[in-house]
Amino acid sequence: MRYVTHMVEISEVDDPRVDDFRDLSRADRRPDRPGGRGLVIAEGVVVVERLLASPYPVRALFGVRRRIEALAGATAALDVPAYVASADVMAQVVGFHLNRGVLAVADRAPVIPPAELIERSRRLVVLEGIGDHENLGALFRNAAALGVDGVLLGAGCSDPLYRRSVRVSMGHVLRVPFAHLESWPEDLKLLRDNGFRLAALTPRADAKSLRDAALDEGRVAVLLGSEGPGLTEEAITAADLAVRIPMAGGVDSLNVATAGAIAFNAMSGA
Amino acid sequence: MRYVTHMVEISEVDDPRVDDFRDLSRADRRPDRPGGRGLVIAEGVVVVERLLASPYPVRALFGVRRRIEALAGATAALDVPAYVASADVMAQVVGFHLNRGVLAVADRAPVIPPAELIERSRRLVVLEGIGDHENLGALFRNAAALGVDGVLLGAGCSDPLYRRSVRVSMGHVLRVPFAHLESWPEDLKLLRDNGFRLAALTPRADAKSLRDAALDEGRVAVLLGSEGPGLTEEAITAADLAVRIPMAGGVDSLNVATAGAIAFNAMSGA
Repeated sequence: MRYVTHMVEISEVDDPRVDDFRDLSRADRRPDRPGGRGLVIAEGVVVVERLLASPYPVRALFGVRRRIEALAGATAALDVPAYVASADVMAQVVGFHLNRGVLAVADRAPVIPPAELIERSRRLVVLEGIGDHENLGALFRNAAALGVDGVLLGAGCSDPLYRRSVRVSMGHVLRVPFAHLESWPEDLKLLRDNGFRLAALTPRADAKSLRDAALDEGRVAVLLGSEGPGLTEEAITAADLAVRIPMAGGVDSLNVATAGAIAFNAMSGA
Repeated sequence: MRYVTHMVEISEVDDPRVDDFRDLSRADRRPDRPGGRGLVIAEGVVVVERLLASPYPVRALFGVRRRIEALAGATAALDVPAYVASADVMAQVVGFHLNRGVLAVADRAPVIPPAELIERSRRLVVLEGIGDHENLGALFRNAAALGVDGVLLGAGCSDPLYRRSVRVSMGHVLRVPFAHLESWPEDLKLLRDNGFRLAALTPRADAKSLRDAALDEGRVAVLLGSEGPGLTEEAITAADLAVRIPMAGGVDSLNVATAGAIAFNAMSGA
Protein backbone atom coordinates (compact mmCIF):
# COMPACT_ATOMS: atom_id res chain seq x y z
CA MET A 1 0.00 0.00 0.00
CA ARG A 2 2.16 2.81 -1.17
CA TYR A 3 -0.63 5.40 -1.00
CA VAL A 4 -0.98 6.09 2.68
CA THR A 5 1.51 5.38 5.39
CA HIS A 6 -0.84 3.38 7.54
CA MET A 7 -3.71 1.90 5.63
CA VAL A 8 -5.55 -0.38 8.04
CA GLU A 9 -8.43 -2.67 7.14
CA ILE A 10 -11.38 -2.57 9.52
CA SER A 11 -13.74 -5.51 9.28
CA GLU A 12 -15.39 -5.53 12.71
CA VAL A 13 -17.94 -2.86 13.56
CA ASP A 14 -16.81 -2.71 17.19
CA ASP A 15 -13.12 -2.23 16.40
CA PRO A 16 -11.96 0.38 18.95
CA ARG A 17 -9.55 1.93 16.48
CA VAL A 18 -12.48 3.69 14.76
CA ASP A 19 -14.07 4.93 17.99
CA ASP A 20 -13.45 8.54 16.98
CA PHE A 21 -15.95 8.00 14.15
CA ARG A 22 -18.60 6.19 16.14
CA ASP A 23 -22.17 7.57 16.34
CA LEU A 24 -21.30 10.50 14.18
CA SER A 25 -24.58 12.32 14.66
CA ARG A 26 -23.59 12.87 18.30
CA ALA A 27 -19.84 13.19 17.77
CA ASP A 28 -19.89 16.97 18.15
CA ARG A 29 -20.73 16.79 21.81
CA ARG A 30 -18.19 14.94 23.86
CA PRO A 31 -18.47 15.51 27.60
CA ASP A 32 -15.21 13.58 27.97
CA ARG A 33 -13.26 16.18 26.02
CA PRO A 34 -12.10 19.75 26.89
CA GLY A 35 -15.05 22.14 26.90
CA GLY A 36 -17.43 19.28 26.10
CA ARG A 37 -16.65 19.79 22.45
CA GLY A 38 -15.97 17.02 20.04
CA LEU A 39 -13.31 16.42 17.50
CA VAL A 40 -13.31 18.24 14.20
CA ILE A 41 -14.93 16.04 11.58
CA ALA A 42 -14.50 16.43 7.83
CA GLU A 43 -16.78 14.60 5.37
CA GLY A 44 -16.05 13.93 1.71
CA VAL A 45 -12.90 14.14 -0.37
CA VAL A 46 -12.88 17.93 -0.85
CA VAL A 47 -13.45 18.78 2.80
CA VAL A 48 -11.00 16.12 4.01
CA GLU A 49 -8.40 17.67 1.71
CA ARG A 50 -9.04 21.06 3.30
CA LEU A 51 -8.68 19.53 6.75
CA LEU A 52 -5.39 17.94 5.76
CA ALA A 53 -4.14 21.32 4.53
CA SER A 54 -5.29 23.10 7.72
CA PRO A 55 -3.52 23.68 11.04
CA TYR A 56 -5.82 21.14 12.74
CA PRO A 57 -3.88 18.06 13.87
CA VAL A 58 -5.42 15.15 11.97
CA ARG A 59 -5.87 11.98 14.02
CA ALA A 60 -7.15 9.54 11.39
CA LEU A 61 -9.07 8.96 8.18
CA PHE A 62 -11.88 6.46 7.74
CA GLY A 63 -13.42 5.54 4.42
CA VAL A 64 -14.15 3.11 1.66
CA ARG A 65 -11.07 2.12 -0.34
CA ARG A 66 -11.93 4.16 -3.42
CA ARG A 67 -12.21 7.40 -1.47
CA ILE A 68 -9.12 6.79 0.63
CA GLU A 69 -7.19 6.19 -2.56
CA ALA A 70 -8.57 9.38 -4.09
CA LEU A 71 -6.85 11.18 -1.23
CA ALA A 72 -3.49 9.56 -1.90
CA GLY A 73 -1.81 12.77 -3.00
CA ALA A 74 -2.91 14.68 0.08
CA THR A 75 -2.06 11.94 2.58
CA ALA A 76 1.22 10.66 1.14
CA ALA A 77 3.39 12.71 3.47
CA LEU A 78 1.25 12.20 6.56
CA ASP A 79 1.84 9.88 9.42
CA VAL A 80 -1.79 9.12 10.27
CA PRO A 81 -3.75 5.91 10.02
CA ALA A 82 -6.27 5.57 7.21
CA TYR A 83 -8.91 3.04 8.20
CA VAL A 84 -10.52 1.29 5.29
CA ALA A 85 -13.84 -0.51 5.55
CA SER A 86 -16.75 -1.60 3.41
CA ALA A 87 -19.61 0.87 3.01
CA ASP A 88 -21.68 -1.41 5.20
CA VAL A 89 -19.24 -1.60 8.12
CA MET A 90 -18.69 2.14 7.83
CA ALA A 91 -22.45 2.82 8.01
CA GLN A 92 -22.72 0.70 11.13
CA VAL A 93 -19.84 2.49 12.84
CA VAL A 94 -20.97 6.04 12.06
CA GLY A 95 -24.65 5.23 12.54
CA PHE A 96 -25.98 6.05 9.07
CA HIS A 97 -25.09 5.60 5.44
CA LEU A 98 -22.54 8.18 4.46
CA ASN A 99 -22.82 9.24 0.82
CA ARG A 100 -19.46 10.91 0.74
CA GLY A 101 -17.64 7.72 1.71
CA VAL A 102 -14.74 9.22 3.59
CA LEU A 103 -14.18 11.02 6.88
CA ALA A 104 -11.28 12.49 8.77
CA VAL A 105 -11.06 13.58 12.40
CA ALA A 106 -8.73 16.12 13.89
CA ASP A 107 -8.08 17.65 17.27
CA ARG A 108 -8.93 21.27 17.71
CA ALA A 109 -6.20 23.76 16.99
CA PRO A 110 -5.28 26.28 19.71
CA VAL A 111 -7.67 29.23 19.68
CA ILE A 112 -6.41 32.47 18.18
CA PRO A 113 -6.53 35.52 20.47
CA PRO A 114 -8.77 38.13 18.84
CA ALA A 115 -6.10 40.83 19.13
CA GLU A 116 -3.74 38.73 17.04
CA LEU A 117 -6.31 38.09 14.32
CA ILE A 118 -7.31 41.76 14.23
CA GLU A 119 -3.75 42.94 13.98
CA ARG A 120 -2.90 40.87 10.94
CA SER A 121 -6.17 41.50 9.04
CA ARG A 122 -7.56 44.19 6.81
CA ARG A 123 -11.08 42.87 6.18
CA LEU A 124 -12.99 41.17 8.97
CA VAL A 125 -16.49 39.93 9.66
CA VAL A 126 -18.02 40.14 13.11
CA LEU A 127 -20.98 37.89 13.84
CA GLU A 128 -23.64 38.27 16.53
CA GLY A 129 -26.28 35.67 17.34
CA ILE A 130 -25.56 33.35 14.42
CA GLY A 131 -26.80 30.18 16.08
CA ASP A 132 -27.82 28.34 12.92
CA HIS A 133 -25.06 25.93 11.91
CA GLU A 134 -25.85 26.08 8.21
CA ASN A 135 -25.86 29.87 8.08
CA LEU A 136 -22.60 29.92 10.01
CA GLY A 137 -20.99 27.44 7.61
CA ALA A 138 -22.28 29.33 4.57
CA LEU A 139 -20.87 32.59 5.97
CA PHE A 140 -17.42 31.01 6.22
CA ARG A 141 -17.68 29.66 2.67
CA ASN A 142 -18.61 33.11 1.40
CA ALA A 143 -15.92 34.80 3.48
CA ALA A 144 -13.30 32.46 2.00
CA ALA A 145 -14.51 32.99 -1.57
CA LEU A 146 -14.59 36.76 -1.27
CA GLY A 147 -11.29 37.34 0.47
CA VAL A 148 -12.32 38.09 4.04
CA ASP A 149 -9.27 37.69 6.31
CA GLY A 150 -11.03 36.36 9.39
CA VAL A 151 -14.20 36.02 11.43
CA LEU A 152 -14.81 37.33 14.93
CA LEU A 153 -17.55 35.56 16.86
CA GLY A 154 -19.53 37.78 19.19
CA ALA A 155 -22.35 36.85 21.55
CA GLY A 156 -24.74 34.04 20.70
CA CYS A 157 -22.84 32.29 17.92
CA SER A 158 -22.58 28.55 17.52
CA ASP A 159 -19.36 26.64 17.31
CA PRO A 160 -18.11 26.89 13.69
CA LEU A 161 -16.42 23.51 14.09
CA TYR A 162 -19.71 21.72 14.59
CA ARG A 163 -19.95 18.98 11.96
CA ARG A 164 -22.74 20.51 9.92
CA SER A 165 -21.02 23.90 9.77
CA VAL A 166 -17.82 22.27 8.55
CA ARG A 167 -19.78 20.51 5.82
CA VAL A 168 -21.85 23.51 4.66
CA SER A 169 -18.74 25.69 4.67
CA MET A 170 -17.14 23.16 2.27
CA GLY A 171 -14.33 22.98 4.82
CA HIS A 172 -13.61 26.69 4.80
CA VAL A 173 -14.17 27.03 8.55
CA LEU A 174 -10.86 25.17 8.67
CA ARG A 175 -9.23 27.72 6.44
CA VAL A 176 -10.61 31.12 7.45
CA PRO A 177 -9.21 31.99 10.87
CA PHE A 178 -11.67 32.91 13.60
CA ALA A 179 -11.55 34.18 17.16
CA HIS A 180 -14.03 34.74 19.96
CA LEU A 181 -14.85 38.15 21.38
CA GLU A 182 -15.44 37.51 25.07
CA SER A 183 -16.99 40.80 26.17
CA TRP A 184 -19.82 41.80 23.93
CA PRO A 185 -20.06 44.37 22.50
CA GLU A 186 -17.22 45.99 24.52
CA ASP A 187 -14.53 44.03 22.68
CA LEU A 188 -15.43 45.77 19.43
CA LYS A 189 -13.13 48.42 20.88
CA LEU A 190 -10.23 46.12 19.91
CA LEU A 191 -11.15 46.73 16.28
CA ARG A 192 -11.47 50.45 16.61
CA ASP A 193 -8.14 50.63 18.46
CA ASN A 194 -6.59 49.04 15.38
CA GLY A 195 -8.03 51.55 12.97
CA PHE A 196 -10.96 49.45 11.76
CA ARG A 197 -14.16 51.07 10.60
CA LEU A 198 -17.13 49.08 11.92
CA ALA A 199 -20.04 48.78 9.51
CA ALA A 200 -23.23 47.28 10.91
CA LEU A 201 -25.39 45.64 8.26
CA THR A 202 -29.07 46.31 8.92
CA PRO A 203 -32.22 46.74 6.83
CA ARG A 204 -33.04 50.04 8.59
CA ALA A 205 -34.16 52.73 6.21
CA ASP A 206 -31.84 55.34 7.74
CA ALA A 207 -28.73 53.22 7.15
CA LYS A 208 -26.33 54.20 4.42
CA SER A 209 -26.70 52.36 1.13
CA LEU A 210 -23.95 49.77 0.71
CA ARG A 211 -22.69 51.35 -2.49
CA ASP A 212 -22.10 54.67 -0.74
CA ALA A 213 -20.25 53.19 2.23
CA ALA A 214 -16.85 52.69 0.53
CA LEU A 215 -16.28 49.42 2.36
CA ASP A 216 -13.32 48.69 0.10
CA GLU A 217 -11.31 51.52 1.65
CA GLY A 218 -9.01 50.98 4.62
CA ARG A 219 -9.51 48.46 7.40
CA VAL A 220 -13.14 47.48 7.61
CA ALA A 221 -15.14 45.06 9.75
CA VAL A 222 -18.69 44.20 8.77
CA LEU A 223 -21.08 43.28 11.60
CA LEU A 224 -23.82 40.77 10.82
CA GLY A 225 -26.68 39.72 13.07
CA SER A 226 -28.95 36.74 13.00
CA GLU A 227 -31.68 36.29 10.42
CA GLY A 228 -34.90 37.59 11.86
CA PRO A 229 -33.98 39.81 14.78
CA GLY A 230 -30.78 41.11 13.17
CA LEU A 231 -28.10 42.94 15.13
CA THR A 232 -28.92 44.14 18.63
CA GLU A 233 -29.30 47.84 19.30
CA GLU A 234 -26.08 47.69 21.33
CA ALA A 235 -24.09 46.29 18.43
CA ILE A 236 -25.44 48.86 15.98
CA THR A 237 -24.67 51.65 18.42
CA ALA A 238 -21.13 50.34 18.92
CA ALA A 239 -20.49 50.46 15.15
CA ASP A 240 -19.22 53.48 13.25
CA LEU A 241 -21.89 53.34 10.60
CA ALA A 242 -25.03 51.44 9.67
CA VAL A 243 -25.15 50.06 6.16
CA ARG A 244 -28.05 48.54 4.24
CA ILE A 245 -28.44 46.51 1.09
CA PRO A 246 -31.13 48.19 -1.00
CA MET A 247 -34.09 45.79 -1.08
CA ALA A 248 -37.12 45.61 -3.28
CA GLY A 249 -40.35 46.63 -1.54
CA GLY A 250 -42.26 44.01 0.35
CA VAL A 251 -39.48 41.50 0.71
CA ASP A 252 -38.48 40.77 4.26
CA SER A 253 -34.79 40.11 3.83
CA LEU A 254 -32.07 37.96 2.39
CA ASN A 255 -30.59 34.97 4.12
CA VAL A 256 -27.83 36.25 6.42
CA ALA A 257 -25.08 34.38 4.55
CA THR A 258 -26.30 35.86 1.26
CA ALA A 259 -26.48 39.37 2.69
CA GLY A 260 -22.99 38.76 4.04
CA ALA A 261 -21.73 37.74 0.61
CA ILE A 262 -22.99 41.00 -0.89
CA ALA A 263 -21.23 42.97 1.84
CA PHE A 264 -18.01 40.93 1.52
CA ASN A 265 -18.01 41.59 -2.21
CA ALA A 266 -18.37 45.31 -1.48
CA MET A 267 -15.40 45.11 0.93
CA SER A 268 -13.24 43.36 -1.60
CA GLY A 269 -10.98 45.75 -3.44
CA ALA A 270 -10.43 43.25 -6.25
CA MET B 1 -66.76 30.86 12.16
CA ARG B 2 -66.39 34.37 10.91
CA TYR B 3 -62.72 33.95 9.97
CA VAL B 4 -62.85 31.92 6.77
CA THR B 5 -65.82 31.46 4.52
CA HIS B 6 -65.71 27.69 4.58
CA MET B 7 -63.97 26.31 7.61
CA VAL B 8 -64.51 22.55 7.52
CA GLU B 9 -63.49 20.12 10.25
CA ILE B 10 -61.72 16.99 9.03
CA SER B 11 -61.65 14.14 11.51
CA GLU B 12 -61.16 11.10 9.25
CA VAL B 13 -57.80 10.49 7.62
CA ASP B 14 -59.39 9.11 4.47
CA ASP B 15 -61.74 12.06 3.93
CA PRO B 16 -61.62 12.66 0.15
CA ARG B 17 -61.97 16.40 0.58
CA VAL B 18 -58.28 16.59 1.56
CA ASP B 19 -57.06 14.41 -1.30
CA ASP B 20 -55.10 17.31 -2.78
CA PHE B 21 -52.88 17.19 0.31
CA ARG B 22 -52.40 13.44 0.47
CA ASP B 23 -48.88 11.91 0.34
CA LEU B 24 -47.29 15.30 0.07
CA SER B 25 -43.80 14.01 -0.58
CA ARG B 26 -45.04 12.77 -3.94
CA ALA B 27 -47.58 15.50 -4.60
CA ASP B 28 -45.34 17.27 -7.10
CA ARG B 29 -45.64 14.52 -9.63
CA ARG B 30 -49.17 13.86 -10.73
CA PRO B 31 -49.47 11.77 -13.90
CA ASP B 32 -53.20 12.48 -13.78
CA ARG B 33 -52.67 16.20 -14.29
CA PRO B 34 -51.62 18.31 -17.31
CA GLY B 35 -47.92 17.81 -18.06
CA GLY B 36 -47.66 15.32 -15.20
CA ARG B 37 -47.09 18.21 -12.86
CA GLY B 38 -48.75 18.54 -9.53
CA LEU B 39 -50.56 21.31 -7.83
CA VAL B 40 -48.71 24.25 -6.37
CA ILE B 41 -48.22 23.66 -2.66
CA ALA B 42 -47.45 26.31 -0.09
CA GLU B 43 -46.27 25.43 3.41
CA GLY B 44 -46.39 27.66 6.47
CA VAL B 45 -48.21 30.90 7.21
CA VAL B 46 -45.81 33.23 5.35
CA VAL B 47 -45.69 31.19 2.16
CA VAL B 48 -49.43 30.52 2.22
CA GLU B 49 -49.97 34.28 2.48
CA ARG B 50 -47.78 34.77 -0.59
CA LEU B 51 -49.77 32.14 -2.46
CA LEU B 52 -53.03 33.84 -1.52
CA ALA B 53 -51.65 37.13 -2.86
CA SER B 54 -50.43 35.53 -6.10
CA PRO B 55 -52.19 34.92 -9.44
CA TYR B 56 -52.35 31.17 -8.70
CA PRO B 57 -55.97 30.03 -8.23
CA VAL B 58 -56.11 28.65 -4.68
CA ARG B 59 -58.14 25.47 -4.29
CA ALA B 60 -58.04 24.92 -0.54
CA LEU B 61 -56.21 25.37 2.74
CA PHE B 62 -55.46 22.60 5.21
CA GLY B 63 -54.10 23.14 8.70
CA VAL B 64 -54.40 23.04 12.43
CA ARG B 65 -56.89 25.52 13.83
CA ARG B 66 -54.32 27.92 15.22
CA ARG B 67 -52.58 28.35 11.86
CA ILE B 68 -55.78 28.64 9.85
CA GLU B 69 -56.90 31.36 12.24
CA ALA B 70 -53.56 33.14 11.88
CA LEU B 71 -54.44 33.47 8.19
CA ALA B 72 -57.83 35.01 8.87
CA GLY B 73 -56.89 38.40 7.43
CA ALA B 74 -55.62 36.94 4.19
CA THR B 75 -58.47 34.51 3.67
CA ALA B 76 -61.44 36.62 4.78
CA ALA B 77 -62.39 37.66 1.26
CA LEU B 78 -61.76 34.27 -0.33
CA ASP B 79 -64.26 31.69 -1.32
CA VAL B 80 -62.14 28.59 -0.69
CA PRO B 81 -62.53 25.85 1.88
CA ALA B 82 -60.15 25.81 4.83
CA TYR B 83 -59.91 22.27 6.17
CA VAL B 84 -59.07 22.07 9.84
CA ALA B 85 -57.68 18.95 11.46
CA SER B 86 -55.65 17.88 14.45
CA ALA B 87 -51.89 17.73 13.97
CA ASP B 88 -52.17 13.98 14.12
CA VAL B 89 -54.81 13.61 11.40
CA MET B 90 -52.91 16.12 9.30
CA ALA B 91 -49.67 14.12 9.64
CA GLN B 92 -51.44 10.97 8.53
CA VAL B 93 -52.94 12.65 5.49
CA VAL B 94 -49.76 14.35 4.27
CA GLY B 95 -47.54 11.42 5.24
CA PHE B 96 -45.24 13.11 7.75
CA HIS B 97 -45.37 15.55 10.62
CA LEU B 98 -45.55 19.05 9.27
CA ASN B 99 -43.87 21.62 11.52
CA ARG B 100 -45.41 24.58 9.81
CA GLY B 101 -48.95 23.37 10.50
CA VAL B 102 -50.67 24.82 7.46
CA LEU B 103 -50.76 24.18 3.74
CA ALA B 104 -52.50 25.59 0.72
CA VAL B 105 -52.83 24.17 -2.77
CA ALA B 106 -53.43 26.05 -5.97
CA ASP B 107 -53.77 25.26 -9.63
CA ARG B 108 -51.03 26.44 -11.90
CA ALA B 109 -51.47 29.85 -13.45
CA PRO B 110 -51.26 30.20 -17.25
CA VAL B 111 -47.64 30.36 -18.39
CA ILE B 112 -46.30 33.73 -19.43
CA PRO B 113 -44.90 33.96 -22.97
CA PRO B 114 -41.23 34.96 -22.72
CA ALA B 115 -41.70 37.85 -25.16
CA GLU B 116 -44.30 39.37 -22.84
CA LEU B 117 -42.08 39.08 -19.76
CA ILE B 118 -39.10 40.52 -21.63
CA GLU B 119 -41.06 43.44 -22.96
CA ARG B 120 -42.25 44.63 -19.57
CA SER B 121 -38.94 44.11 -17.72
CA ARG B 122 -35.75 46.02 -17.23
CA ARG B 123 -33.69 43.57 -15.16
CA LEU B 124 -33.92 39.86 -15.87
CA VAL B 125 -32.17 36.68 -14.87
CA VAL B 126 -31.66 33.83 -17.31
CA LEU B 127 -30.93 30.40 -15.86
CA GLU B 128 -29.29 27.42 -17.55
CA GLY B 129 -29.01 23.95 -16.04
CA ILE B 130 -30.31 24.85 -12.59
CA GLY B 131 -31.67 21.43 -11.70
CA ASP B 132 -31.26 21.71 -7.94
CA HIS B 133 -34.58 22.68 -6.39
CA GLU B 134 -33.04 24.45 -3.42
CA ASN B 135 -30.72 26.56 -5.56
CA LEU B 136 -33.62 27.41 -7.83
CA GLY B 137 -35.79 28.45 -4.88
CA ALA B 138 -32.97 30.50 -3.35
CA LEU B 139 -32.41 32.26 -6.69
CA PHE B 140 -36.05 33.35 -6.74
CA ARG B 141 -35.84 34.56 -3.14
CA ASN B 142 -32.74 36.61 -3.96
CA ALA B 143 -34.26 37.90 -7.20
CA ALA B 144 -37.32 39.10 -5.29
CA ALA B 145 -35.27 40.75 -2.56
CA LEU B 146 -33.00 42.56 -4.99
CA GLY B 147 -35.57 43.84 -7.45
CA VAL B 148 -35.16 41.51 -10.42
CA ASP B 149 -38.24 41.80 -12.65
CA GLY B 150 -38.41 38.20 -13.84
CA VAL B 151 -36.67 34.91 -14.47
CA LEU B 152 -36.22 33.18 -17.82
CA LEU B 153 -35.65 29.44 -17.64
CA GLY B 154 -33.32 28.06 -20.27
CA ALA B 155 -32.27 24.47 -20.90
CA GLY B 156 -31.96 22.03 -18.03
CA CYS B 157 -33.81 23.88 -15.30
CA SER B 158 -36.17 22.26 -12.83
CA ASP B 159 -39.74 23.30 -12.30
CA PRO B 160 -39.71 26.31 -9.94
CA LEU B 161 -43.13 25.28 -8.66
CA TYR B 162 -41.81 22.04 -7.22
CA ARG B 163 -42.68 21.97 -3.53
CA ARG B 164 -39.15 22.32 -2.19
CA SER B 165 -38.40 25.28 -4.47
CA VAL B 166 -41.55 27.03 -3.32
CA ARG B 167 -40.49 26.52 0.30
CA VAL B 168 -36.84 27.57 -0.09
CA SER B 169 -37.90 30.62 -2.10
CA MET B 170 -40.09 31.63 0.86
CA GLY B 171 -42.92 31.71 -1.65
CA HIS B 172 -41.22 34.15 -3.98
CA VAL B 173 -41.47 31.79 -6.96
CA LEU B 174 -45.14 32.72 -6.71
CA ARG B 175 -44.32 36.40 -6.88
CA VAL B 176 -41.46 36.78 -9.34
CA PRO B 177 -42.79 36.08 -12.84
CA PHE B 178 -40.97 33.49 -14.92
CA ALA B 179 -41.12 32.14 -18.45
CA HIS B 180 -39.53 29.29 -20.39
CA LEU B 181 -37.17 29.80 -23.31
CA GLU B 182 -37.96 26.91 -25.62
CA SER B 183 -35.04 27.10 -28.06
CA TRP B 184 -31.76 27.26 -26.24
CA PRO B 185 -29.69 29.34 -26.60
CA GLU B 186 -31.33 30.73 -29.78
CA ASP B 187 -34.16 32.38 -27.83
CA LEU B 188 -31.68 34.68 -26.12
CA LYS B 189 -32.17 36.67 -29.32
CA LEU B 190 -35.54 37.75 -27.91
CA LEU B 191 -33.65 39.65 -25.25
CA ARG B 192 -31.23 41.27 -27.62
CA ASP B 193 -34.09 42.28 -29.92
CA ASN B 194 -35.53 44.17 -26.97
CA GLY B 195 -32.35 46.07 -26.23
CA PHE B 196 -31.11 43.90 -23.38
CA ARG B 197 -27.42 43.52 -22.70
CA LEU B 198 -26.68 39.86 -21.84
CA ALA B 199 -24.06 39.38 -19.14
CA ALA B 200 -22.86 35.80 -18.61
CA LEU B 201 -21.59 35.18 -15.07
CA THR B 202 -18.52 32.94 -15.13
CA PRO B 203 -15.39 32.51 -13.02
CA ARG B 204 -13.18 32.75 -16.14
CA ALA B 205 -10.14 34.93 -15.62
CA ASP B 206 -10.68 36.84 -18.89
CA ALA B 207 -14.20 37.90 -17.91
CA LYS B 208 -14.81 41.49 -16.92
CA SER B 209 -14.89 42.22 -13.21
CA LEU B 210 -18.45 42.74 -11.99
CA ARG B 211 -17.72 46.23 -10.75
CA ASP B 212 -16.58 47.34 -14.20
CA ALA B 213 -19.56 45.91 -16.06
CA ALA B 214 -22.06 48.69 -15.22
CA LEU B 215 -24.89 46.21 -14.85
CA ASP B 216 -27.07 48.93 -13.36
CA GLU B 217 -27.27 50.75 -16.70
CA GLY B 218 -30.01 50.09 -19.22
CA ARG B 219 -31.81 46.80 -19.77
CA VAL B 220 -29.69 43.95 -18.50
CA ALA B 221 -30.11 40.19 -18.27
CA VAL B 222 -27.69 38.16 -16.18
CA LEU B 223 -27.08 34.56 -17.28
CA LEU B 224 -26.33 32.03 -14.56
CA GLY B 225 -25.29 28.40 -15.02
CA SER B 226 -25.34 25.49 -12.67
CA GLU B 227 -22.94 25.11 -9.78
CA GLY B 228 -20.03 23.03 -10.91
CA PRO B 229 -20.06 23.05 -14.71
CA GLY B 230 -21.34 26.62 -14.97
CA LEU B 231 -22.74 28.07 -18.18
CA THR B 232 -22.18 26.16 -21.40
CA GLU B 233 -19.81 27.52 -24.00
CA GLU B 234 -22.83 28.17 -26.25
CA ALA B 235 -24.52 30.33 -23.65
CA ILE B 236 -21.38 32.35 -22.94
CA THR B 237 -20.84 32.88 -26.67
CA ALA B 238 -24.44 34.02 -27.10
CA ALA B 239 -24.01 36.67 -24.41
CA ASP B 240 -22.72 40.19 -24.99
CA LEU B 241 -20.15 40.06 -22.25
CA ALA B 242 -18.69 37.70 -19.67
CA VAL B 243 -18.62 38.95 -16.10
CA ARG B 244 -16.88 37.52 -13.05
CA ILE B 245 -17.10 38.06 -9.33
CA PRO B 246 -13.54 38.57 -8.09
CA MET B 247 -12.71 35.55 -5.93
CA ALA B 248 -9.99 34.91 -3.41
CA GLY B 249 -7.33 32.50 -4.62
CA GLY B 250 -7.87 28.83 -4.12
CA VAL B 251 -11.60 28.94 -3.57
CA ASP B 252 -13.65 27.04 -6.11
CA SER B 253 -16.75 29.19 -6.24
CA LEU B 254 -19.77 30.50 -4.49
CA ASN B 255 -23.11 28.77 -4.39
CA VAL B 256 -24.98 29.77 -7.57
CA ALA B 257 -27.76 31.53 -5.65
CA THR B 258 -25.18 33.53 -3.69
CA ALA B 259 -23.26 34.46 -6.84
CA GLY B 260 -26.60 35.44 -8.33
CA ALA B 261 -27.39 37.67 -5.36
CA ILE B 262 -24.11 39.55 -5.82
CA ALA B 263 -24.91 40.05 -9.51
CA PHE B 264 -28.51 41.09 -8.81
CA ASN B 265 -27.24 43.65 -6.32
CA ALA B 266 -24.90 45.00 -8.99
CA MET B 267 -27.84 45.25 -11.41
CA SER B 268 -29.96 47.12 -8.92
CA GLY B 269 -29.84 50.83 -9.44
CA ALA B 270 -31.08 51.49 -5.90
